[in-house]
Amino acid sequence: MKAVQWIAPREVIIQDAPKPEPGPREALIRIESVGVCGSDIHYYVEGAIGNQKVKPPFTLGHEFAGIVEAVGAEADASLVGKRVAVEPGMPCEKCEWCLRGQYNVCPNMIFPGNPPYDGALSEYYTAPARFCFPVPDSMPADEAAMMEPLAVALHTAELCNLQAGMTVAVLGLGPIGLLTAQVLRFSGAGRIIGADLLDYRVKEAPHHGVDEAFNASTQDTVETIKELTKGRGADVVIDATNASSALPNALHIAKPAGRVVHVGISGKEMDSIPVGPARRKELTLQWVRRFKHNYPAAIELVASGKLDIRKVMTHSFSFEQSKDAFELVTEYADGVLKASIDY
Amino acid sequence: MKAVQWIAPREVIIQDAPKPEPGPREALIRIESVGVCGSDIHYYVEGAIGNQKVKPPFTLGHEFAGIVEAVGAEADASLVGKRVAVEPGMPCEKCEWCLRGQYNVCPNMIFPGNPPYDGALSEYYTAPARFCFPVPDSMPADEAAMMEPLAVALHTAELCNLQAGMTVAVLGLGPIGLLTAQVLRFSGAGRIIGADLLDYRVKEAPHHGVDEAFNASTQDTVETIKELTKGRGADVVIDATNASSALPNALHIAKPAGRVVHVGISGKEMDSIPVGPARRKELTLQWVRRFKHNYPAAIELVASGKLDIRKVMTHSFSFEQSKDAFELVTEYADGVLKASIDY
Amino acid sequence: MKAVQWIAPREVIIQDAPKPEPGPREALIRIESVGVCGSDIHYYVEGAIGNQKVKPPFTLGHEFAGIVEAVGAEADASLVGKRVAVEPGMPCEKCEWCLRGQYNVCPNMIFPGNPPYDGALSEYYTAPARFCFPVPDSMPADEAAMMEPLAVALHTAELCNLQAGMTVAVLGLGPIGLLTAQVLRFSGAGRIIGADLLDYRVKEAPHHGVDEAFNASTQDTVETIKELTKGRGADVVIDATNASSALPNALHIAKPAGRVVHVGISGKEMDSIPVGPARRKELTLQWVRRFKHNYPAAIELVASGKLDIRKVMTHSFSFEQSKDAFELVTEYADGVLKASIDY
Amino acid sequence: MKAVQWIAPREVIIQDAPKPEPGPREALIRIESVGVCGSDIHYYVEGAIGNQKVKPPFTLGHEFAGIVEAVGAEADASLVGKRVAVEPGMPCEKCEWCLRGQYNVCPNMIFPGNPPYDGALSEYYTAPARFCFPVPDSMPADEAAMMEPLAVALHTAELCNLQAGMTVAVLGLGPIGLLTAQVLRFSGAGRIIGADLLDYRVKEAPHHGVDEAFNASTQDTVETIKELTKGRGADVVIDATNASSALPNALHIAKPAGRVVHVGISGKEMDSIPVGPARRKELTLQWVRRFKHNYPAAIELVASGKLDIRKVMTHSFSFEQSKDAFELVTEYADGVLKASIDY
Repeated sequence: MKAVQWIAPREVIIQDAPKPEPGPREALIRIESVGVCGSDIHYYVEGAIGNQKVKPPFTLGHEFAGIVEAVGAEADASLVGKRVAVEPGMPCEKCEWCLRGQYNVCPNMIFPGNPPYDGALSEYYTAPARFCFPVPDSMPADEAAMMEPLAVALHTAELCNLQAGMTVAVLGLGPIGLLTAQVLRFSGAGRIIGADLLDYRVKEAPHHGVDEAFNASTQDTVETIKELTKGRGADVVIDATNASSALPNALHIAKPAGRVVHVGISGKEMDSIPVGPARRKELTLQWVRRFKHNYPAAIELVASGKLDIRKVMTHSFSFEQSKDAFELVTEYADGVLKASIDY
Repeated sequence: MKAVQWIAPREVIIQDAPKPEPGPREALIRIESVGVCGSDIHYYVEGAIGNQKVKPPFTLGHEFAGIVEAVGAEADASLVGKRVAVEPGMPCEKCEWCLRGQYNVCPNMIFPGNPPYDGALSEYYTAPARFCFPVPDSMPADEAAMMEPLAVALHTAELCNLQAGMTVAVLGLGPIGLLTAQVLRFSGAGRIIGADLLDYRVKEAPHHGVDEAFNASTQDTVETIKELTKGRGADVVIDATNASSALPNALHIAKPAGRVVHVGISGKEMDSIPVGPARRKELTLQWVRRFKHNYPAAIELVASGKLDIRKVMTHSFSFEQSKDAFELVTEYADGVLKASIDY
Repeated sequence: MKAVQWIAPREVIIQDAPKPEPGPREALIRIESVGVCGSDIHYYVEGAIGNQKVKPPFTLGHEFAGIVEAVGAEADASLVGKRVAVEPGMPCEKCEWCLRGQYNVCPNMIFPGNPPYDGALSEYYTAPARFCFPVPDSMPADEAAMMEPLAVALHTAELCNLQAGMTVAVLGLGPIGLLTAQVLRFSGAGRIIGADLLDYRVKEAPHHGVDEAFNASTQDTVETIKELTKGRGADVVIDATNASSALPNALHIAKPAGRVVHVGISGKEMDSIPVGPARRKELTLQWVRRFKHNYPAAIELVASGKLDIRKVMTHSFSFEQSKDAFELVTEYADGVLKASIDY
Repeated sequence: MKAVQWIAPREVIIQDAPKPEPGPREALIRIESVGVCGSDIHYYVEGAIGNQKVKPPFTLGHEFAGIVEAVGAEADASLVGKRVAVEPGMPCEKCEWCLRGQYNVCPNMIFPGNPPYDGALSEYYTAPARFCFPVPDSMPADEAAMMEPLAVALHTAELCNLQAGMTVAVLGLGPIGLLTAQVLRFSGAGRIIGADLLDYRVKEAPHHGVDEAFNASTQDTVETIKELTKGRGADVVIDATNASSALPNALHIAKPAGRVVHVGISGKEMDSIPVGPARRKELTLQWVRRFKHNYPAAIELVASGKLDIRKVMTHSFSFEQSKDAFELVTEYADGVLKASIDY
């Protein structure tokens, strides 16, 4: 089969790769759409996220959907022929975290596009059958692939302990920030304040439930949000950026007894944070690892029209144009939010 | 001053009563609007809720708003002249619950219209100044009085532990049920199923965020909801009825590991519930006592247009027509949801 | 193989039964010890718990330990020959509750000794290999079988939301009540008040961490606990009885904003509870369904000497004496707490 | 009256200071004992904690007990003459956090010995009457003063979400670390691993419930704890150190989905932490601000003998020897854990 493979920073080429075989409890999926994620871009440009390094040739891609072509002997045969959104990742099912349902932190996780495991940007991919979620006919493949970032946003929102009417600040208005804003708006946020370094994202934010957005390259994030909240700070602050300066800001703008939820990936392993203010305000800092159990709700909320995933889907490329997709997202060009590669 | 006083079942008359004086930390409020609550109706018709009995003459009313006419020596003087929604109740501020902020269960609570304490359906009332919340000019007095049932709905929703996309069943589509549905719809419910015994309320429900509503006098509640959820049951079930048959139904239709939130007042002290199924499903049954700390969010959510309180406000009466208001609500006449008495 | 089988109320006989074969992911266990549980007694005496009815012949027993004699092809072969405590129950691993780690409420659960599924009081039994927990050499088989009721107690304690210093009331001082008291004493309870109808259990209670115990047949439960707590009530109340009168008492003696945890099995499907006081105090009523993920901690806490399971183990019977064991427990004779059948 | 006042780094002298007058809701306390806290030492040595700076002359001390000599007009007169442990701090009682019972993060808090507010190391001090907790005759004044660090430990433990049997690592075995270990041992910890840089504290640790302790200056903290837990990590990690290197270690040794609770005060405002591992493990980092509502439990647990506060009380000084007390603690001399100044 064909696969789009990373061979060096900012170089991907289409090459032949062995077509996978489904294991007994797995499904073989003919891929129809793959989304481009910020973590893909870390690998694409730097060849690494922190100390996780890629060795070429390597296939990226973990946001995907397709059609089940075959299943293993112990898998649900009724999946064959169905269009599915695929929850990426193969947890071990044996460790204490898997047994408790916290499979997103399984230490033995095999995650597509996370080195050393190849991703899904190829013609075929295998995944555990139980992670293949049929989507309704009304949901096209590119939307089905978007269940992955939406699942991240839903899981992030779960970790916010939101109560109706709370004030939330979202730092970073890329796809994850905007989808999280959509989910929080839908989940009872009273007021959502957004910040990003790019004007086009600031302008886009109000369409995703953000009440007030500003450009953090021209306005000081901490001062602006303190002023907007009359010095009180936000109940919940989401760090959905890829910048290591955001987390300290997040801790500064959280209210006393507030909550900071860190879903962004800065690419650095260490970050300097204001522990003094955090302690005096008795803050909680919650990190987010992907998602768990969020696909059914993601599909249902989009299928029923309660959330509009298409608002973040700005660009579509063919399989052959994959490199263009990575470049576009790397450059934050042409007002890109989310680009997908549609076969 | 004039007060509307209960003297016997279904008999209220307007009589003179002593005008109250504000204590050092209290405000004197010239009442402008009082809402009629289901608990008022229990007292109006039966003279009691369970073993809490009224002695005549007695003034009902605890949903109210007005203008601050004076404040005590230690209260915030800037309140004078302001239009306020008044959070009813005077907790002791000394017990362990008050100190922890759980003042809604203060054992020494003095609550208006809860015997033996007179309510607010009179020309004046005094309340702790810190419970007088100024409302914006855009919010008329009758809406301001509705902050009380909305606060109940917000507190009920807080106790639901809702996650985006969950299925909720609301039993009882009176003002509390419908407002709770509104809040839960706003707070991320995926699907809301409603039930009531009155057709006009069933028909009204879709305007309040209920996706599917049915008449529980013609359709079996448990069977209908089991069928609608394909046997799974609801993640959260709200009992907002005044019927003792609802709680057993609520426990039957909650999913395994589900949650039942009981905000209704049946008027009976005892209720028979299915402990066997509740145990086998490891359910949680959470009772609701009024509200705590919910007025600021209630005012903000209505003032910003995020919730529409007016949808439950169907009837307005003058002070002189107070008895008509009680009768209308007692009889569930003329499609009544919430009636208010507007001076 | 031989099995002890129920054929009519209070009649069990030893009969031949087919020796089971382990499935691919299962272990075949040669049983060494089976504990007698209160739920076994419900079936032994009444042939039913609520509407769950037994059809003869039926093998009881779900508290057990033994030696792994063989495992299926996909199971961990290193288990063979090991002495194990067996967590009873075979959840489906496919439903939403299993995936979330809430397997104790799996609607498809196959539980030993729960009709229609035979229990373990026989020479052999098969169980999922992952539920066979090796025990240290220092732990004899009869103690290993006791990991089951201890797991119930640990799960019950988890659901108590205990904070150091809280006052707990334990209604019912049978094995589950006493083990829960032990766990709560170990887990930071400030004061534990216990009640039972049997003098010998009241006398035994102080050895299990109960600070004050009384006989509820001669002293009114509600009045006594109200008096002991100066009217305040208990932070947490455990109902570990088999009496339907206990739950109403539990709700009466919980403090405002308190928590009632119901682990007992009354054998009745319906129970009449004081909803009025429960609502006015905004109580939480939490039911308990067996256990989940508690075996590792149970084994570790006993092996390290932090908990003393032997304190509840009062009687041992041979396999041939199984009927005597059931009779003893049925009659609450000879100061019995927990009886085990040791092969 | 006489007061011990800081005039320069490592210089305190006894000077005259105005005797305070109790406000209407306050009590005047004749001080009998003041404990020396690590935060006092930050001020004593550096004149600052982070950007909170002291201006001379300044009175330190916030762990104290004494006898109520008088109360204001609105305070509980029965307090006069009673021996009391005093919960330090005067929250505003008006902000949203005070109303919710989260007074420990009140932005308007007046805290003794926290600049610019003088502390209690003087002959008299005034405090809100509701924060004066009578102690039993069996509790001497020096123990009563220790209710403050014990309250910190109880609040820290509350924020640990401990379940029976969990593994806890305590970094820093000073008074707060050891008291927290005591509370966690009492609250169900399965295994407590402790680390400190000082041998005498490592040796002391087993008397406070620590199962295994090691010297972090000779053994690598992360490696040692990973090894002790077979690579799994600890369920909960407490950072109770004053070293900025501890928090990164804490995040490294927490298990996936684990919890880090930061109660120590490093004296630096910024700290560099491993955000990559924290994100991949989906950790929660919870800061601790003093205590809230913990004095009643602290007094009860010590009075009933359930906790032994005296184990941390190693040195006593007279009022005149106050400087010696500060020097001893500064130098970690003579095996000091907690020093108190007893009048």
